[in-house]
Amino acid sequence: MRYCILFISCLLSSVMMATEVKSPNGHVVLSFTVENGRPTYSLTYKGREVVHPSHLGLELAKDKHASKGLEETDLMDGFTLLKDEVKEVDETWQPVWGENRNIRNHYVEYLAILPQVEYFRTMLIRFRVYDDGIGFRYEFPQQKNLIYFLIKEERSEFRMTGDHTAWWLPGDYDTQEQETQETRLSEIRSRMKEAVNWGNSSVAVFSPTGVQTSLQMKSQDGLYINIHEAACADYATMHLELVDQQTKALTTQLGGGSNAYTPNPKPSPYPLPQPFTFVSHLTPDATGLKGAMQTPCETPWRTVMVSDDARDMLSSNLILNLNEPCALDDTSWIHPTKYCGVWWEMIVGKSSWNYTDEFPSIKLDNIEWQKVKPNGRHAANNEKVKRYIDFASKNGLDQVLVEGWNVGWEDWANMWKRDVFDFVTPYPDFDIKMLNDYAHSKGVKLLMHHETSSSTQNYERHMEAAFNLMNEYGYDAVKTGYVGDIIPRGDHHYSQSMNNHYLYVVKEAAKHHIMVNAHEATRPTGLCRTYPNLVGNESARGTEYEAFGGSRPDHTCILPFTRLQGGPMDYTPGIFVTKLSEWSDNPSWARITIAGSLALYLTMYSPLQMAADLPENYEKFDDAFQFIREVACDWDESIYLEAEPADYITVARKAKGTDNWFIGGKCDENGHKTTVKLDFLDKGRKYDCTIYADAKDAHYEKNPQAYTITKKVVKAGDVLKLTEAPGGGFAVSLIAK
Amino acid sequence: MRYCILFISCLLSSVMMATEVKSPNGHVVLSFTVENGRPTYSLTYKGREVVHPSHLGLELAKDKHASKGLEETDLMDGFTLLKDEVKEVDETWQPVWGENRNIRNHYVEYLAILPQVEYFRTMLIRFRVYDDGIGFRYEFPQQKNLIYFLIKEERSEFRMTGDHTAWWLPGDYDTQEQETQETRLSEIRSRMKEAVNWGNSSVAVFSPTGVQTSLQMKSQDGLYINIHEAACADYATMHLELVDQQTKALTTQLGGGSNAYTPNPKPSPYPLPQPFTFVSHLTPDATGLKGAMQTPCETPWRTVMVSDDARDMLSSNLILNLNEPCALDDTSWIHPTKYCGVWWEMIVGKSSWNYTDEFPSIKLDNIEWQKVKPNGRHAANNEKVKRYIDFASKNGLDQVLVEGWNVGWEDWANMWKRDVFDFVTPYPDFDIKMLNDYAHSKGVKLLMHHETSSSTQNYERHMEAAFNLMNEYGYDAVKTGYVGDIIPRGDHHYSQSMNNHYLYVVKEAAKHHIMVNAHEATRPTGLCRTYPNLVGNESARGTEYEAFGGSRPDHTCILPFTRLQGGPMDYTPGIFVTKLSEWSDNPSWARITIAGSLALYLTMYSPLQMAADLPENYEKFDDAFQFIREVACDWDESIYLEAEPADYITVARKAKGTDNWFIGGKCDENGHKTTVKLDFLDKGRKYDCTIYADAKDAHYEKNPQAYTITKKVVKAGDVLKLTEAPGGGFAVSLIAK
Repeated sequence: MRYCILFISCLLSSVMMATEVKSPNGHVVLSFTVENGRPTYSLTYKGREVVHPSHLGLELAKDKHASKGLEETDLMDGFTLLKDEVKEVDETWQPVWGENRNIRNHYVEYLAILPQVEYFRTMLIRFRVYDDGIGFRYEFPQQKNLIYFLIKEERSEFRMTGDHTAWWLPGDYDTQEQETQETRLSEIRSRMKEAVNWGNSSVAVFSPTGVQTSLQMKSQDGLYINIHEAACADYATMHLELVDQQTKALTTQLGGGSNAYTPNPKPSPYPLPQPFTFVSHLTPDATGLKGAMQTPCETPWRTVMVSDDARDMLSSNLILNLNEPCALDDTSWIHPTKYCGVWWEMIVGKSSWNYTDEFPSIKLDNIEWQKVKPNGRHAANNEKVKRYIDFASKNGLDQVLVEGWNVGWEDWANMWKRDVFDFVTPYPDFDIKMLNDYAHSKGVKLLMHHETSSSTQNYERHMEAAFNLMNEYGYDAVKTGYVGDIIPRGDHHYSQSMNNHYLYVVKEAAKHHIMVNAHEATRPTGLCRTYPNLVGNESARGTEYEAFGGSRPDHTCILPFTRLQGGPMDYTPGIFVTKLSEWSDNPSWARITIAGSLALYLTMYSPLQMAADLPENYEKFDDAFQFIREVACDWDESIYLEAEPADYITVARKAKGTDNWFIGGKCDENGHKTTVKLDFLDKGRKYDCTIYADAKDAHYEKNPQAYTITKKVVKAGDVLKLTEAPGGGFAVSLIAK
Repeated sequence: MRYCILFISCLLSSVMMATEVKSPNGHVVLSFTVENGRPTYSLTYKGREVVHPSHLGLELAKDKHASKGLEETDLMDGFTLLKDEVKEVDETWQPVWGENRNIRNHYVEYLAILPQVEYFRTMLIRFRVYDDGIGFRYEFPQQKNLIYFLIKEERSEFRMTGDHTAWWLPGDYDTQEQETQETRLSEIRSRMKEAVNWGNSSVAVFSPTGVQTSLQMKSQDGLYINIHEAACADYATMHLELVDQQTKALTTQLGGGSNAYTPNPKPSPYPLPQPFTFVSHLTPDATGLKGAMQTPCETPWRTVMVSDDARDMLSSNLILNLNEPCALDDTSWIHPTKYCGVWWEMIVGKSSWNYTDEFPSIKLDNIEWQKVKPNGRHAANNEKVKRYIDFASKNGLDQVLVEGWNVGWEDWANMWKRDVFDFVTPYPDFDIKMLNDYAHSKGVKLLMHHETSSSTQNYERHMEAAFNLMNEYGYDAVKTGYVGDIIPRGDHHYSQSMNNHYLYVVKEAAKHHIMVNAHEATRPTGLCRTYPNLVGNESARGTEYEAFGGSRPDHTCILPFTRLQGGPMDYTPGIFVTKLSEWSDNPSWARITIAGSLALYLTMYSPLQMAADLPENYEKFDDAFQFIREVACDWDESIYLEAEPADYITVARKAKGTDNWFIGGKCDENGHKTTVKLDFLDKGRKYDCTIYADAKDAHYEKNPQAYTITKKVVKAGDVLKLTEAPGGGFAVSLIAK
């Protein structure tokens, strides 16, 4: 790692003139000042306004325990700028896995030291100014008058400069599995009701203008702006509440644990920001409070990415860079993974996770599993799992996920049932030893599954035994799940305590050399840099929704701009037989072509990639499946060739440790034509090029299985002209000769 | 174990006449009927009314998850009595430890099968009628229309027959450490404010007539009545709300997690019971709900004990009998324990639990303990612990409790700090290996201490490692503590989830052969029968309050009627130097004489007894200390010789496996004269009798250290005449010759 730290300036007076801090190339300029006692920042990009002057601060709760009897006061105003520091950092680091072998972390840091003189205490705000945006966080040094505090609400403002187009999800404390809405900012309020009812997720918004991050926007003059956060560990997940013309007061939920929008919120005592301002809104705990803090501590980084080129939104490493370096000494056991699994057939409804239908409900202690009546639909049985192992082995897939292997699925979700699973007892028809031995003999591993049913206390009680079982049988990765309401009741999926839980699981798993892929957990914020055994998350509407009514064709052209900013998604792509009625009773259908499905292995970066369809469905299209066999999922270099939110994404990636390249393009329902110049290939070298493209008449609904496979030899400088069908895409492999 | 099960009757019609069920000796008679669809019971004792007709039922929450979409309806009315069953059971069992070697469990059971026809579901109510009271519980068989349900409130009524005198604690979800109030029922409301402000506990009542159980009463015509519960495991602790002339509606707290009295409670839709009716009020979770249930399941037993002789309140085994038999196969490792400890000097304020005062707060991961500056007041240091080990060894005490041995005490309580302790890292001046080796070489064990600071999630995360550490160094008992507000926030000490936690700890400890003594946990309900490694609880105002301003002299003449009904208390008696200013800066003083302190080892039954004062204080009164050296804490037989709540208690106990008897008498601030007939001694045998009595001028305030020791030889039939000073008592040992 190369360090180049340059101290540029140090002591400034507390003059109220704004300080300007420029990014290394000067495109991004942060201004900071203290305005009437309130920390205030603004942002420009190439001289164009991105964030109008916006206040920063936190409202604290008047808790009996806070600050040892001192009546707690907010960290909102009364500040002076005592001192500030600027330094430039330029370093390069290597992720354990990722889109690039080397990541440059080059920024100018600005640290504002802000005493709140009346209360004899000091808060810091640290900014890092990159060429593609900024990050800032609050820091609270250990000090006599600020030891512990409770956050009523963080009030970080992001005042937008106009009525941007935004791609947003309704703000919810427990789910991110909605369809993305595309509206102007001024239309968020009027769209909210429809947005909440969209799809089949159970959504309860906290405000009629509440949205989630990562929030991708585009200004009317073509600036791409993204607001998210980085390194959210022991802190509540941030949402954003938009102040619009109708806003009378900001939503504050103190003292109530309801997750429904509060009709009579307690208003903040501070002036309402201007319209088009987003204000941070943290996920509450069961009592309505947003966070319990002990100094020294800091918030996560709040990020604003900006560019006039949409591709920069995708190639940015800003969020990873704002996270701490890897905390694990040994990462040799962490590896990219391609897998298939006993999963899609249950999602579709053809078979079941549970073993029996004999009882209205079960209690784990009271069932003699060998004696119960099987329902005949249990998927995770020895025969079927062996079939998947054989398939994986034959096709070079690393692992086989098996869901429904363990007892408890009979009544697992949304029953407020604490002791749902024990994570160690297989169903009678799942021979854990035999199947792992069989898999290992075929060069394949099984991938463990721990659905917690959001009964987190139960999971923590059993986790050590569950990980020991994994070590015993040779599992090295687990998919966890958090379906349903959180137990303890009143808590939310994105609260401080749940975020602590998710990371606790990752840390404990690391002790056992176990990789974690957490579903329904909070949206990622780049913590995979620090804990690279966090190889995946769901945290968005995944492929499973194609069996629950479907997702829009442009869905996968939005996710890389939003959900993927914080880390990889276990999107589980690869559905070849998109009309589920062809092999099940499910009338749903996936809105994608086969070539489009192949493209997702490139456009949706993840070190963990599933081939989600059934083996028999792949066997029908074995020539197309060749791409899945071949594609890498760890990279030396990635080049985003073109991108536009909700329209199209094209990316070329060089497989790690090889000279082979793969290119993928995915588009929305309108189709897309693209021309790829192969100028990134090694000069003077030839490549076997295989192009998996939509057939001329391909269409995500009418003709999804029409594809062509073209092989030729290419060299640097050649051009590929490709046509993506509506809801389609393409995939190219370039194998160095 | 001797079983005598007799089926007396079976099928009855749903006629609305009350069914009468008599206790084995006929003194207690239960009547049960269904009155306008509501289950209704009443109770008489020797023909006198004890409980007027009272309704039974539960209000359920209208939760989205309940009963799979069915709109949830209450289990309050619409019942018919389809069938009932009566049987008599007479069995005798042996506790692992206790007041008696054999316990007879003799009752007539009445089971009412109650379909709620409109909803096609059935609830059972099971009564057990003993000669000294009744127990009843609700049972919910597994059935299609009652699979899961959420309890809004249990509505078990106990309609008293008049304006009884009651000994009560203000109803609180988190503390039982108040002084007991003695008032008429009609005076509870007017006394509440004073009761809440009494002492220095932080009390937040749920209702102006809310009280805790066990509630001891005495009717104006001399009936002793006690309401409590038995076998409260995975269910919220029950409080009682009195309906009086001012009651407009019962308090129901649904949807709010506040622990303060709700000024505008949502009223129950059911008619208000008559004045002098107690109605059950369960401890809520963070969302205000009272319980999440899955059939088949049942509530704890609700108990009404009754007699015209106060001694029967103390000798009753009704609550133990209503608990399930021992669940542990091997109990050989469970033993009664007498102990001293590094504790009182910290309680008094002379030394500290924490090792350093260097930091405003600490984070366990960030401190290099070897490098911090000691505060010079840390009690749990090698030298001091060795002094206590030497003292224990010399005086036949089994164990030495050491509090403050582990890192984290610098800022441990009420800071909403989750990661407070790790339970495995000793302070630098506590050599855990050396001290345990030293203790074992002297025939003594150390007694572990796990203060959780009510951060239960943190404790559960570290518990297995903590118990392993105990096993490694040879600890076999742990004192746990739950000081401060519960984390996760919004939960309460007596909620369903916390009650589950306490029992989880006991069960996990049993796997490690560890005995548990849980402080600040919920009040016990006889679970020590099922899990006899639960050797103690605090759950009331203990001796520590003598250092916090003091407790009334009659306090220990009330506790056996109330707190001790459910199980032993680690009251930590034995303060000899009652004026704390004699050796510290603490102006508090214990309101007891030395002879009174000795009496507590008998009147406050526990298998775990502390000699709480400092070794040097005992050494000043070594002749009195002889009684503590000698007294047993496990018994073959116990005979309550006289008793009156808040006035006096005299008990004789035969030490287990010996022919030695011990007698103790404790009285209130008025003094007491007693005549003990030694007719329980073996005929024809002689006993060395040592009498530790208050001196003539002894007085709990003016002359607490004035005692006499008299030795003589006695035989069966002899009479001892004893005078107890104000706030005093006596203790007698009778060693068989």
